[in-house]
Amino acid sequence: MSQNTKRAAVILAAGQGTRMKSPVPKVLHTVAGRTMLDLAIDAAEGLGCDRIVVVVGAHSPQVGETARARLGAENVVIQDPPLGTGHAVLAAKDALAGFDGQVVVSYADCPLIDTSVLKTVFDLADTADLAVLGFTAADPGAYGRLIIEGDNDLSAIVEAKEASLEQLAITACNSGVLAADRATLFSLLGEVTNANAKGEYYLTDVVGLAKGCGLKPKTCFVAEDDVIGVNSQAERAVAEAIWQTRRRNVLMRDGVTMTAPDTVFLSWDTQIAAGVIVEPNVVFAQGVSVDSGAVIRAFSHLEGAKVGSGALIGPYARLRPGAQIGRDAHIGNFVEVKNAKIGDGAKANHLSYLGDGEVGAKANIGAGTIFCNYDGFFKHRTVVGEGAFIGSNSSLVAPVNIGAGAITGSGSVIAQDVPADALAFERARQTEKPGWAKAFRDRKRAEKAALKKG
Amino acid sequence: MSQNTKRAAVILAAGQGTRMKSPVPKVLHTVAGRTMLDLAIDAAEGLGCDRIVVVVGAHSPQVGETARARLGAENVVIQDPPLGTGHAVLAAKDALAGFDGQVVVSYADCPLIDTSVLKTVFDLADTADLAVLGFTAADPGAYGRLIIEGDNDLSAIVEAKEASLEQLAITACNSGVLAADRATLFSLLGEVTNANAKGEYYLTDVVGLAKGCGLKPKTCFVAEDDVIGVNSQAERAVAEAIWQTRRRNVLMRDGVTMTAPDTVFLSWDTQIAAGVIVEPNVVFAQGVSVDSGAVIRAFSHLEGAKVGSGALIGPYARLRPGAQIGRDAHIGNFVEVKNAKIGDGAKANHLSYLGDGEVGAKANIGAGTIFCNYDGFFKHRTVVGEGAFIGSNSSLVAPVNIGAGAITGSGSVIAQDVPADALAFERARQTEKPGWAKAFRDRKRAEKAALKKG
Amino acid sequence: MSQNTKRAAVILAAGQGTRMKSPVPKVLHTVAGRTMLDLAIDAAEGLGCDRIVVVVGAHSPQVGETARARLGAENVVIQDPPLGTGHAVLAAKDALAGFDGQVVVSYADCPLIDTSVLKTVFDLADTADLAVLGFTAADPGAYGRLIIEGDNDLSAIVEAKEASLEQLAITACNSGVLAADRATLFSLLGEVTNANAKGEYYLTDVVGLAKGCGLKPKTCFVAEDDVIGVNSQAERAVAEAIWQTRRRNVLMRDGVTMTAPDTVFLSWDTQIAAGVIVEPNVVFAQGVSVDSGAVIRAFSHLEGAKVGSGALIGPYARLRPGAQIGRDAHIGNFVEVKNAKIGDGAKANHLSYLGDGEVGAKANIGAGTIFCNYDGFFKHRTVVGEGAFIGSNSSLVAPVNIGAGAITGSGSVIAQDVPADALAFERARQTEKPGWAKAFRDRKRAEKAALKKG
Repeated sequence: MSQNTKRAAVILAAGQGTRMKSPVPKVLHTVAGRTMLDLAIDAAEGLGCDRIVVVVGAHSPQVGETARARLGAENVVIQDPPLGTGHAVLAAKDALAGFDGQVVVSYADCPLIDTSVLKTVFDLADTADLAVLGFTAADPGAYGRLIIEGDNDLSAIVEAKEASLEQLAITACNSGVLAADRATLFSLLGEVTNANAKGEYYLTDVVGLAKGCGLKPKTCFVAEDDVIGVNSQAERAVAEAIWQTRRRNVLMRDGVTMTAPDTVFLSWDTQIAAGVIVEPNVVFAQGVSVDSGAVIRAFSHLEGAKVGSGALIGPYARLRPGAQIGRDAHIGNFVEVKNAKIGDGAKANHLSYLGDGEVGAKANIGAGTIFCNYDGFFKHRTVVGEGAFIGSNSSLVAPVNIGAGAITGSGSVIAQDVPADALAFERARQTEKPGWAKAFRDRKRAEKAALKKG
Repeated sequence: MSQNTKRAAVILAAGQGTRMKSPVPKVLHTVAGRTMLDLAIDAAEGLGCDRIVVVVGAHSPQVGETARARLGAENVVIQDPPLGTGHAVLAAKDALAGFDGQVVVSYADCPLIDTSVLKTVFDLADTADLAVLGFTAADPGAYGRLIIEGDNDLSAIVEAKEASLEQLAITACNSGVLAADRATLFSLLGEVTNANAKGEYYLTDVVGLAKGCGLKPKTCFVAEDDVIGVNSQAERAVAEAIWQTRRRNVLMRDGVTMTAPDTVFLSWDTQIAAGVIVEPNVVFAQGVSVDSGAVIRAFSHLEGAKVGSGALIGPYARLRPGAQIGRDAHIGNFVEVKNAKIGDGAKANHLSYLGDGEVGAKANIGAGTIFCNYDGFFKHRTVVGEGAFIGSNSSLVAPVNIGAGAITGSGSVIAQDVPADALAFERARQTEKPGWAKAFRDRKRAEKAALKKG
Repeated sequence: MSQNTKRAAVILAAGQGTRMKSPVPKVLHTVAGRTMLDLAIDAAEGLGCDRIVVVVGAHSPQVGETARARLGAENVVIQDPPLGTGHAVLAAKDALAGFDGQVVVSYADCPLIDTSVLKTVFDLADTADLAVLGFTAADPGAYGRLIIEGDNDLSAIVEAKEASLEQLAITACNSGVLAADRATLFSLLGEVTNANAKGEYYLTDVVGLAKGCGLKPKTCFVAEDDVIGVNSQAERAVAEAIWQTRRRNVLMRDGVTMTAPDTVFLSWDTQIAAGVIVEPNVVFAQGVSVDSGAVIRAFSHLEGAKVGSGALIGPYARLRPGAQIGRDAHIGNFVEVKNAKIGDGAKANHLSYLGDGEVGAKANIGAGTIFCNYDGFFKHRTVVGEGAFIGSNSSLVAPVNIGAGAITGSGSVIAQDVPADALAFERARQTEKPGWAKAFRDRKRAEKAALKKG
């Protein structure tokens, strides 16, 4: 675009999504851990759109609320009743009244339409009166066919139902995404009628109307996967799989080693540095970054966590939001870290819950340690000093502070602060009853035998 | 079928399965968590068969035992020695002597033959003297070819070895499944001879014999996958994969969201309601039902469990038989629930074992809690009242009752009942030895250094 | 080969691997849990090569160190600067000066070249002056084409860039692997020049030179997958996937049941007996053997462990190096075993850490048990006698010995030896404060309400 052309997006999010058969509205289903609605807005924001207007239906108030929370009420319009895609875009007319620039029409149920896809059609709109995004369909089926002449001049879009046999053989299909100058777009839309079998206002009619006015619609193409639509749970899963495969490939291209990439699940914002090794069966939920040289072992689950360089995570580590794992720290099997900073070189290798606190550098957290952070009403912090050694099966009752270099005895409940370099323990005397176990077994065996007889 | 036609099934389960190379008899291997033998019986039962007779071999007594346990001794016959498929079906003749109706011949090593497949062939048997189930093979190879005339009239089945080049090009193949009136079937089988290279009695010979008597055999078709046979571990895995894919698709069609359906493993009886979200890497073993709005997070394993509406399970939750999770309850990471009822809104989020007991509504089970349910001889119950708060790292020694609203201190062993609203704890005094840790480290460092020198 | 022909391998490992974008040198990346360099050496050793010489680059000292550690300094040569593949092989000339026999040239970045692949080309070298290993490429692209006459007589290798259209249609391609008598190979290499566009010495030039001397080069073929090269993380993942699929198929062929083979990850040395059942999502890291009749349940991770016949492992079991699990023993969910021998029929079913010790036959380890094996400096051993019963949530502080048949109380810290058949416990008195919980809640609720107002 010329330096000064402004851009806007109208995102259609008014579909009912009844084929999802879900209480959750369709566009609030997630792909890559993010709602499809948000992904559509991300794509427009990523391209620097000055205005983004979302068209929602009256049937799913939750969609409108989500869109308003992100974009403000002035950028969300309701299409009610739903009278077709052309009608839906027209619902955004007033919201964009003061906008001077290009407008792209995009879809909240096409989660793979990203910034680069929108850029393709916007760039074409710089030189065409109307830019229509096409794709080459492996199986064109019911898609509208693009009738193209010369250098991607679009002469018409023909619906499959009305196409001749010859036209049905065309594999160039309409994605539904198009862009034009705002005034042109809404002027054309104003002329669309519902004189058709379904009595709906079709967005695609603008192509014919544009031709009729002597305007020049043009087409450009992206991959079929880029514009895949989601109307069912299975289609959502297909979109997810495409997204995951692409993102895994980008990470591998950039130097991440994945033993079995098909088993690694990423989120839209996952950051993994070159030189990181990811073993099989790892889930990266939202908000994770991993620094170079870290190893994420099998069966780990990370969310909202930062992993430092050289850290060893898992197998079976669960990092929850607010986990910050220091350089060369170890978080081992069946260990959960939440809202806690683990110092450089610290270790918590087995069966522990470290919630709401801080572990100093090189501290060692014994197996079975619990940070008792919750009293039923408030969360409290546990602080373990540098180089401290927490005995196995300890309960650290927050708020509590274990000094640097302190040691706590195995199985202790530590509810009071421990000074640096001190030993603290909470322990009764070990008691023995010789022969008791044998007598107990004899008695229980007899009981069991009696029960079987009885 | 006409309203009054009765149906029976003869299930052949006499194959040795030597290619499985397993100590477990072939038909007792599982697909979808159920033995292939049981799946074959399920299919016949699902169609309302009045009689189901299983033909077993003498080589694997375990198969006969399994069949007898389910169907009764009168419905299990032994083929000994094994002299071919025709001979195997004939072994069921006496068992079905008193039966008046249609008989289908099915196979215990074809785990995807379900009720709808059997219905296809039974329905054809209503109008044909002999109904043979075919499939169109992608690679016909060694399958018997169906020679069809006119409207699915079957003129012959030609074994691949004896087929002409022209016949080998036929892709319509014999599944081995057929149905006919009992009298007709056994009358034809009585005429089958073993005058062939292998000296075996072939079931397929009944087609030629039927034609010879002026009867009209007909064919109907199902998908090749429907009649896939299992003769090796790899084929079992293929059958399992087909079953899993189909079942996942059914659940998605019905409104279940699966982030990555390929990583979700279902059992034959898994029930998941529309609106449930299933994250990657979840195993549903036998006997699970999940109500709407529940979320099953990654790496969870459920078996014999009921999950209530809105419950949050996992990641890394293990629900074992008898787990009943209430509405909006949370079962978190590294938590095992067995034979225990978890009340509405109750939470057990970390590293706990809840075996044999009951947790009241809105109770909170602290991290690291163990229900000590076993004394080496008997299992005892732990009951936690509504709204109770169990401190972290607690051991509740069953039988024990924690009253409603009671609180237990972290790290306590609670072996006696706790009244409602009381605090209970078991705790020694925390003791400290200032400087001890430093002295210990100095001593140990010296020992370690001495060892390295020494 | 004739009985007395000696064999040697020159393994080229000098590539920079910049496309891996990893701090780890390319050939030290792993496939099947073993570095590609080691896999290349394994293949040569597996064939009984008398000499194995690795050619490394000057840019990655770590590669040379790894090779020297395994093969000795005399078998590692540095190619510096890198002037092409012919130059690389020539770097091994002096190291092989005293060797009399056949030499194969192989590649450390082709992890699927195994003993059988090398055998194919060596066997051909018995009868040909120069044996070149080819493969039929699905998409020949930039591969060198093999110009073959008559009975696999190789008349030339034509680089894709210099190939005619007709030659480009050839799908027989050069793998780069070749074998010849040592004297012949190095004599031919001595004549290779760098008179080409890149100014490099190409190994493939030896074919033309051989023809020029009247020698007869011949070709033999393996599958394209056998000679797949790894130059990027994605290619490494492809090689890994091929290796895994092949190995799973071998195990299934030999009688291992895998519910979902695609989700089972094996290592180069994994041993699983016929009759073992492996559930979905299991990782076998290096050094594992599993005896017949064992069941490895979902989400288990095994490394350096021996599993006895009939043992039940998992779900969510982590066996670490030195774990030896006895016959019919059970290791359950969230249990970690490291450097410990678990006796026949012993059970540790829940949330435990058994590190550095021994558990006697039929002993029962309660949920939440920790072997406190580490004092920050040394590891100590815990010994639990036959038939002992360790109460839940116990901490056994090593070194400690629990006698046969002894019982320990739940939640106890056991730091002193317990005699056989005795009961030992460490426990304070349970204390109760009636009504305290209610008062606490009232107070906390008020605090929380005040905070919200404030």
